[in-house]
Amino acid sequence: MTKQELKNCHQRIIPFIHKTPVLTSRLLNKISGAELYFKCENFQRMGAFKMRGAVHAILGLSEDKKSKGVVTHSSGNFAQALSLAAQKIGVKAYVVMPSNAPQVKKDAVKGYGGTIIECPPTLEDRERTATQVQQEKGATFLHSSNHPNVIIGQGTAALELLEEYPDLEYLFAPVGGGGLIAGTALAARFYGNQCMVIGCEPYEVDDAYRSLQSGKIETNETINTIADGLKTQLGDINFPILQKYVSEIIRVEEHEISTAMKLIWEHMKIIIEPSSAVAFAALLRNKEHFKDKKVGIILSGGNVDLKKLPF
Amino acid sequence: MTKQELKNCHQRIIPFIHKTPVLTSRLLNKISGAELYFKCENFQRMGAFKMRGAVHAILGLSEDKKSKGVVTHSSGNFAQALSLAAQKIGVKAYVVMPSNAPQVKKDAVKGYGGTIIECPPTLEDRERTATQVQQEKGATFLHSSNHPNVIIGQGTAALELLEEYPDLEYLFAPVGGGGLIAGTALAARFYGNQCMVIGCEPYEVDDAYRSLQSGKIETNETINTIADGLKTQLGDINFPILQKYVSEIIRVEEHEISTAMKLIWEHMKIIIEPSSAVAFAALLRNKEHFKDKKVGIILSGGNVDLKKLPF
Repeated sequence: MTKQELKNCHQRIIPFIHKTPVLTSRLLNKISGAELYFKCENFQRMGAFKMRGAVHAILGLSEDKKSKGVVTHSSGNFAQALSLAAQKIGVKAYVVMPSNAPQVKKDAVKGYGGTIIECPPTLEDRERTATQVQQEKGATFLHSSNHPNVIIGQGTAALELLEEYPDLEYLFAPVGGGGLIAGTALAARFYGNQCMVIGCEPYEVDDAYRSLQSGKIETNETINTIADGLKTQLGDINFPILQKYVSEIIRVEEHEISTAMKLIWEHMKIIIEPSSAVAFAALLRNKEHFKDKKVGIILSGGNVDLKKLPF
Repeated sequence: MTKQELKNCHQRIIPFIHKTPVLTSRLLNKISGAELYFKCENFQRMGAFKMRGAVHAILGLSEDKKSKGVVTHSSGNFAQALSLAAQKIGVKAYVVMPSNAPQVKKDAVKGYGGTIIECPPTLEDRERTATQVQQEKGATFLHSSNHPNVIIGQGTAALELLEEYPDLEYLFAPVGGGGLIAGTALAARFYGNQCMVIGCEPYEVDDAYRSLQSGKIETNETINTIADGLKTQLGDINFPILQKYVSEIIRVEEHEISTAMKLIWEHMKIIIEPSSAVAFAALLRNKEHFKDKKVGIILSGGNVDLKKLPF
C-alpha cells in the first residue's frame, strides 16, 4: 500500500463522503494538558468513518462484479455504510444480520437501501449465510475491516486531518477489527512528520494489545464492553500493519470510556459513540506522557442508542 | 438601533466570542421539505448565544462602571455568560442565584469566575438581592434580555448567518425573555433580503404570542415546559421590536419539542438544549407552509442536563 494509492483513493471517494471538520476545545486541552485536534467522523455520512472504506471497496470492483452486488455480515456501522455506499454508487447491497439485531439497526440498513438477509445469531451462521448469498447472487463479499481497500479508505480520515495539521506528533484511534487503526497508521507514515500512532482499546476486548505482545493474532473470549464498535476481531491483513506502524496500544477501563464520552458531549456539544470515546479516554489515562503535545484524535462515529447511555 | 450599531457591536465582541458554524443536514431537509441552515450557538463559548449579549453589555460600560463590576440575577445561561464575559474582559461579576439552584449551575458560574450571592427562591428576593449588590458594590445591573446592548449583541448570531447566507427567506428563533428574537429581527431587517422572522414558543409559556395578540405584555401563570431557557418573561424593550419586526409566533407542544430535539441529536450528532429544539419543532409543525423555502434556524444553546433527557 503506497502513498499514491491512498491519494488516489481519497480522490475517488470524495464525491461520496463528507470532508468532516476538525474541532478543538480549550477546556479539553486544559483538562488533558495536550493540544487536541478532533477529527469528527461522527459527522460523516451515515454517522461513522466506515463510509470511507465501504465506498472505496465498492469502487474498486470491476463493472461486472458491481452489477452482481456486494454482501457483508454486520449488525453495526459497516452494515449501514455498505448499504448507503452501494446505493450512492448504484450497486445492490446484501446485508446478513442476526435475527436478534435491534429493529433500529435493521431499519437504518433498509433506509439506506440495503437488502437484509436474516440468519441465526452465531458467527458461524453469519459466515455460512454470507457464503450462500455469494454463491446464489454472485455478489462480492466485502469484510468490514480486514480488506486492503477498506483499510486504505479508512486511512483517508487521517489523511485529511494531517493535510490540515501536518505537524501533529501523535494520532489516537480506536481499535476494533483494525481497519481504522491500520489505515490511520499508513496515513501517518505517508503524510505525517514523524507522527506516532497510538491504538486505543477497552481492557474488555484487548485482542490487539495481546496480539502485539505475543506476535500472533489473539482472540477475545468475552466482549463485555460499552464500546460496541470495538468487539470485532483483529484481522490478518490489518495485523502486520499494526505490528509495523503502530507505536503502542493503550487500554482503558469501562468507566474511563463513559467519563471521556461525557466530557466530549458536555464540553464539545457533539454526540460521539462509546467506541469513539475510547481514544480520548486513552489520552486522559496517560496525560502526563502527552503533555503539551499536538495530538490528533479520530472520533470514529456518532451512532448511539439514546435510550442506553452509559451515564 | 441601527445597522451601524449592530456592525460595530459585532466588531467589538469578535475577540471574545466564537464565530459559530452553520450546519446543514440532507436528512432534516428531506424530513422538513425545506432547505435548512442551522446556526450553531450550542458551539458558542459557555454553550449558548448569551455570551454575545453579555460581552457587548459589559463592553458598553464606562471604565468607571467596569471597575465596580456587574450584577445580574439568573440561574440559567446568562449567569454563566456574564461570568465568563466579565472574566475575559477583566471585570468582576456578581450573580444572584436562588439557594435551590442546581449545584451543577453554581459550579459552572464559579468555574467562569463569577461570584455567587444566594437568595431565597422567589423573583422578588432575586430582584431585592440584586438591588442590594448594586448599592453595596456600586455594580451595574445587567438584565439577561431586556437591555438594548444585550439585544444588539444577540443579533450578531443572525448577522453572521445572513452574511454567510444572504438569501434566507425565513429566520426561526426561540422566544424567552425576547433578547434573541428581537436581535434576530433587527439583524434580518438590516442584513436580510426581505427575510421574515418567526418567533417560536412552547404553548406552556406563550406570553409572547399572547402579547402580540393583545398588544400589551402578557405574563405566564405557569411555566411547565422542558424548554427551561424560555420561561423568562418578555420585556418592555424587546416587545416593541417584536411588534414591529416579527412576522409571527408559532407555538409548539412539549412532545413536539422532544421529538425535534431527538431528530437533531440523532441525525446531526450535535447536542442542543430543549429551548433550541423549539425553533425546529415550530418549522416541523408548519412544514407545508415552508416547503422548498430557505430557512435559517438559530440553535440557541447546548447546555443540557444529561441525566434529565426528555426521551
